[in-house]
Amino acid sequence: MRAGFIGLGNMGRPMALNLLKAGMDLTVYNRTPSKVEELVARGAKPASSPADLTRRVDIVLSCLADVPSSLHAFLGAGGVVEAASPGQVLVDHATVDMETSRKVHEAARRKGALFLDAPISGGPVGAADATLSIMAGGEEEAFDKAQPIFQAMGKTVLLMGGSGAGTATKLVNQLLVGIHTVAASEALVLGRKVGVDLEKLVYVLERSWGQSRMLERNAPHILGRNFGPSSVPLRNLLKDLAIILRLAKSEGIPLPTGSGAHRVLAALVEEGKGAWDIASACLFIEKVPPEKPASDS
Amino acid sequence: MRAGFIGLGNMGRPMALNLLKAGMDLTVYNRTPSKVEELVARGAKPASSPADLTRRVDIVLSCLADVPSSLHAFLGAGGVVEAASPGQVLVDHATVDMETSRKVHEAARRKGALFLDAPISGGPVGAADATLSIMAGGEEEAFDKAQPIFQAMGKTVLLMGGSGAGTATKLVNQLLVGIHTVAASEALVLGRKVGVDLEKLVYVLERSWGQSRMLERNAPHILGRNFGPSSVPLRNLLKDLAIILRLAKSEGIPLPTGSGAHRVLAALVEEGKGAWDIASACLFIEKVPPEKPASDS
Repeated sequence: MRAGFIGLGNMGRPMALNLLKAGMDLTVYNRTPSKVEELVARGAKPASSPADLTRRVDIVLSCLADVPSSLHAFLGAGGVVEAASPGQVLVDHATVDMETSRKVHEAARRKGALFLDAPISGGPVGAADATLSIMAGGEEEAFDKAQPIFQAMGKTVLLMGGSGAGTATKLVNQLLVGIHTVAASEALVLGRKVGVDLEKLVYVLERSWGQSRMLERNAPHILGRNFGPSSVPLRNLLKDLAIILRLAKSEGIPLPTGSGAHRVLAALVEEGKGAWDIASACLFIEKVPPEKPASDS
Repeated sequence: MRAGFIGLGNMGRPMALNLLKAGMDLTVYNRTPSKVEELVARGAKPASSPADLTRRVDIVLSCLADVPSSLHAFLGAGGVVEAASPGQVLVDHATVDMETSRKVHEAARRKGALFLDAPISGGPVGAADATLSIMAGGEEEAFDKAQPIFQAMGKTVLLMGGSGAGTATKLVNQLLVGIHTVAASEALVLGRKVGVDLEKLVYVLERSWGQSRMLERNAPHILGRNFGPSSVPLRNLLKDLAIILRLAKSEGIPLPTGSGAHRVLAALVEEGKGAWDIASACLFIEKVPPEKPASDS
């Protein structure tokens, strides 16, 4: 099976490398050509556009950073869908809103192609280790065809339901990632303020009911004051939370903790910290005074 | 070493049973005498008051449900501190506010006794299995004396710092428990609303960055609609979150997600669901419309 990969960024690059390691026949495309060269040096073939790539492979995978980039790669001029052929499998690994997933699915269907929304979780480390979670939505036939590819990049690979179910699953995961990230900041800033040793505190929390994977991930950054530019930046998480808040609003579901997390990330991105690591959420908790004075406590 | 245990409720009863299993010489006291009888039938000795118990043992442990009960048992007439002797170790396993811990510590110090604030995490299951986390604050000498007792009831046993550090650690843990509980409800209610299979969703979330121990604990309750009276009731968690919110306010620390969680629990307890399982938080997310209409989304 000939595979094509569009978008060789923080996530796409290690995912594409894993496909080469697994011996796949791989064609790649990236807007910035320098990123293509590394993959070509390791055996991949270069394509001149998403459409060119699509004409030369059996399955197209795309992993781009935001909704406009995904929409453009799939539905734009010179994009994937205009070049797609009947029976071909098209996969979007980006985290987008549910409408975008449904729109691309519908366009692919009109060309007889099979579309999977298949967002990933695990970050650059999971991408490098081929331990990603891949949560797909779409037809079973498409999922079965994509399995050898998914297995070369991920560990927990599941068909969540029909079109949009992969995107919905990823959005729910990101809601928890955002809340747990801000929660970890609230917890550790409060703990330090009342004089608890932070290393012991984290040790106990990780072994108690307060544990979360994001606490485990963020605690070393918070303890080490390691907040600078990162491959897991605040702006990406904010983008996901904004999509989730719109979705919840349209479904009539309140998000009392999710909206609190969104407020923190939005304030930090507003301050110009969009490229900073998500653990920088703790800077908001450290600096912002409470809404009411402490006098009546 | 002769140990005494005050408060044979959901947590205290299995903890006291583990001390008997470990072969300790145990004296017990409980306001409701029927709970004493079971322990006496298994080898414990009954005491007529906290003061009576204190006069007959080397180390006093107390595990009561709320701040007034703890204060009364330690500082009230016929309480622990009035009967305490120099060098005796007094331990409070309840989750109280930091002022209460400091107040009891100071009163014990005046009698020459050694006080440990030593809250626990792990719930009734952890208490029964002797796998509790025990987070203590106080003098090292007291902690060393209490070690054989703590080891018979818990698995992760740590001296977190001086007086109050155990209480502070538990409060931070409870902040995360409260946030993660409400977050799990937001996540699963939203997931179901957008058509994702809940069992698959939980499976993926537990293996992704959205994982938390409270998600794992609450998901079976939410999927099984198992919300009734429970040994892990909403009102206890609300009590802890209220203590934390006051503490954070007095320290000038905002809790954007913690205050959202508090609001949910307070509304449910207000509705008369205080005895219900904490997973009932999802009933709030299911029933309450968002603050603004969805028209401009």
